[in-house]
Amino acid sequence: MSQKLEQFKKIMAEVTDLGRAEALLGWDQQVNMPRGGAEDRGNILETIAGLMHDKFTSSEVGELLQDLKPYAESLDPRSDDACLIKRVAHDYEKQVKVSTQWVAEFAKETTTSQSVWEEAKANNDFELFRPHLEKVVELRRQYADFFKPWDHVYDPLLDDFEPGLKTKEVKDIFGKLRPQQVELLKAIAGKPVIDDSFLHIPYDEKGQWDFGVDVITRFGYDWNRGRQDKAVHPFTTGFGIDDIRITTRFDPERAASALFSTMHEGGHALYEQGINHTLARTPLATGTSMAVHESQSRMWENLVGRSKPFWKFFYPKLVKLFPSQLGNVSLDAFYKGINKVEPSLIRVEADEATYNLHVMLRLELEIALMEGSLVVKDLPEAWNARMKDYLGVVPAKDSEGVLQDVHWSTGSIGYFPTYALGNLVSSQLWEKINQDIPNLEAQIEQGKFDELLSWLRVKIHQHGAKFEPQALVKEVTGSTITPEPYIRYLKTKYSEIYNL
Amino acid sequence: MSQKLEQFKKIMAEVTDLGRAEALLGWDQQVNMPRGGAEDRGNILETIAGLMHDKFTSSEVGELLQDLKPYAESLDPRSDDACLIKRVAHDYEKQVKVSTQWVAEFAKETTTSQSVWEEAKANNDFELFRPHLEKVVELRRQYADFFKPWDHVYDPLLDDFEPGLKTKEVKDIFGKLRPQQVELLKAIAGKPVIDDSFLHIPYDEKGQWDFGVDVITRFGYDWNRGRQDKAVHPFTTGFGIDDIRITTRFDPERAASALFSTMHEGGHALYEQGINHTLARTPLATGTSMAVHESQSRMWENLVGRSKPFWKFFYPKLVKLFPSQLGNVSLDAFYKGINKVEPSLIRVEADEATYNLHVMLRLELEIALMEGSLVVKDLPEAWNARMKDYLGVVPAKDSEGVLQDVHWSTGSIGYFPTYALGNLVSSQLWEKINQDIPNLEAQIEQGKFDELLSWLRVKIHQHGAKFEPQALVKEVTGSTITPEPYIRYLKTKYSEIYNL
Repeated sequence: MSQKLEQFKKIMAEVTDLGRAEALLGWDQQVNMPRGGAEDRGNILETIAGLMHDKFTSSEVGELLQDLKPYAESLDPRSDDACLIKRVAHDYEKQVKVSTQWVAEFAKETTTSQSVWEEAKANNDFELFRPHLEKVVELRRQYADFFKPWDHVYDPLLDDFEPGLKTKEVKDIFGKLRPQQVELLKAIAGKPVIDDSFLHIPYDEKGQWDFGVDVITRFGYDWNRGRQDKAVHPFTTGFGIDDIRITTRFDPERAASALFSTMHEGGHALYEQGINHTLARTPLATGTSMAVHESQSRMWENLVGRSKPFWKFFYPKLVKLFPSQLGNVSLDAFYKGINKVEPSLIRVEADEATYNLHVMLRLELEIALMEGSLVVKDLPEAWNARMKDYLGVVPAKDSEGVLQDVHWSTGSIGYFPTYALGNLVSSQLWEKINQDIPNLEAQIEQGKFDELLSWLRVKIHQHGAKFEPQALVKEVTGSTITPEPYIRYLKTKYSEIYNL
Repeated sequence: MSQKLEQFKKIMAEVTDLGRAEALLGWDQQVNMPRGGAEDRGNILETIAGLMHDKFTSSEVGELLQDLKPYAESLDPRSDDACLIKRVAHDYEKQVKVSTQWVAEFAKETTTSQSVWEEAKANNDFELFRPHLEKVVELRRQYADFFKPWDHVYDPLLDDFEPGLKTKEVKDIFGKLRPQQVELLKAIAGKPVIDDSFLHIPYDEKGQWDFGVDVITRFGYDWNRGRQDKAVHPFTTGFGIDDIRITTRFDPERAASALFSTMHEGGHALYEQGINHTLARTPLATGTSMAVHESQSRMWENLVGRSKPFWKFFYPKLVKLFPSQLGNVSLDAFYKGINKVEPSLIRVEADEATYNLHVMLRLELEIALMEGSLVVKDLPEAWNARMKDYLGVVPAKDSEGVLQDVHWSTGSIGYFPTYALGNLVSSQLWEKINQDIPNLEAQIEQGKFDELLSWLRVKIHQHGAKFEPQALVKEVTGSTITPEPYIRYLKTKYSEIYNL
């Protein structure tokens, strides 16, 4: 059996290596690649992806799993080996159920639909995108059917991002969350508008870069095992536990954008840098789910980065870097400015009080599309109606509404809810952390994050993808994903800021 | 047969894709990778190299070649298909002799030894590097043994860079060349020392970067299909014909270093960017040999870049960028300064009259290491002794001696002689070019390089690796590699500069 386990790990190591190569090809594509490189890059990525898929779904892996699954039952269920076998078996059994023909058709259609979406967004032309989105929805229904019987057609899609999570659970969570967020938003709408004009004047890029670097260095980001570059869309990626890179972007008149983006990506990176080295070169050497990953990025970005204690320490430094922009802005005014609530059209620019509403809207529309209770033709109307209901604003054009996100054109249905779930998990963890580290606020006021990071390392990071997200969250916080802590957090924070 | 050819090309495309991925992993390692990434990078490279080797040396390729080789005989021998089959057959027959285990071990060891070399060089610590170099030499001996019987243990290594060339031939060529270079050096040593002090004062990096970019842009380097970055050791690499990248380095008090390095790498890149797109995703989409490659880089760096006509055009621009450094230096003084002959420690900074002596020293040491007549432990001493003999200077520390070049840490034994051979080929080509373009000097004086580049595109670049190096050089110049044109060039140039 130990020989079989060795062979199994050898194949998984090679699959992981290919995935890392693929990640580097993708990072370079977004950070460095000259325009001319696109065609060859596509071919290289296709070849690597094909080899990786063939290797992972080979009959050899299937046969090894047949023997290793019963063996895993005999192991400590928390051991690396047991977790590795279990996770790979889950992914293997999913991947082999999908027909090669479907994979090819999906790859072809989403390549086309991505470029059509770009054109449709640029020209505000939903009709151009419509037939392609219809095809994507149809393909995603076929995809779900490979996994019948399911409780809900959306389950297999959600499971790709949140292993084990069910549509019913997500609906229950958001069912509790939504009315409370809408209510909070209405209360804020009756209060005076916060002035954040000082955030919308020019800030030079070098100062923004240096400040962001200082912040995430203090968070604990290890520059010997990572680096930061610029990219059009910020992201985090890695080529091994000891090479986890982040990217950021600068908008000279939206200083807050780069700063919080750097903290956000830094949070993702801290997770990946904290994975136990015993998991290196296995599929477990990554975050366990998109929601748990997002809980880390949102925690550093929002619960830490938009808090009063954080700015008590950092604001004098920021003022020193940008005296002409901030010299006359008090700490209190700055804190309120970066936490201003303002219902807007674009998800990626939304504040904490409105962000989840953007996500819930998308989730509901995705579920309706998958169920067939909504057809693509009626999607813009449904989008705009929900925007009015939840946020009180309606896009004047589809490019600022239903066409704003790339996700559906890439076939990523099931991804959106993880953004909101990440917010909820971040608050669940935060309540627990503050119980375990009673003077955390005081530490943050002194620019000290080592105890916080240690806590996250021990409770979350080190485990990589060993445990399913709901099990991990429950183990650490005593409950599976639940909206109450996030609601408490929002109410407390905005009651103080808006004097509710 | 056409079905077999298609299948053959499909496999070669995948092998080429994997090679491109490997190249990107290597580029990133030298340009971007944080130190922590080294171990994982080694594993990834090992996996990719193993897969590439398995794919290229598969029995399927062997069987296809059995059928395709006779078919190639029926084709126009200059056709892409005939050349592809012939070249792959040559490489296949070589590679199947090498074990997969060796390939993987070599990839892993050289990844480690590269990082160690960087540290050893930075800390002037040969002992740190020694065990790794010993391992590299041992692995290279094992490699040579796969090809027994050979005339010389060094032959199989040389053949990797210059297909078909024998150690004996190289010794013969250098045997003619060396006494003439030594004689020239002695004649120059009796002449007054040229003042080049203006090259050894601070020049800011941005000005150096901008000037280098201007020069290679005028040469014809296509920035939509490439980019320049900084690296410890400048090099050129590519991830497709349309993504050919160069690197450079800056020494604030040696302005000439970055400038000529940029022209040198630009010359390599022009070759790769000029390959015919019909060869894309085949093993022919690269230069045909290292010597021919080096003929291109050295031509742009020296025959163009260190010539009087070149500086008639560019010197006023340089003076404008660096008025305080060069405002009082005449064109003639500058021209003599950049062509000053001065035996020195560092190969990459050596002048044209001494450069080949650095190469010959390395060649002799490599041969001795491979033969076993020299052990790695004694290498620094042997290095220093030869430096004294050939160049009359001895490094005070190994970082300026035996540790100066990256090559051995990457396992590239057999590579060095191609640098000197490249010089010879560049002069052979230059004599021919000046026959075909009689007013070339006048064009260069006007900063015009399009006719020169077109000539190189037609005669050399477009063919990629279709023709063997000796055949190509003979076809274009009428002779295989020979030292006479280079000797004529050196004598003419330095007679004028040094008034010999």
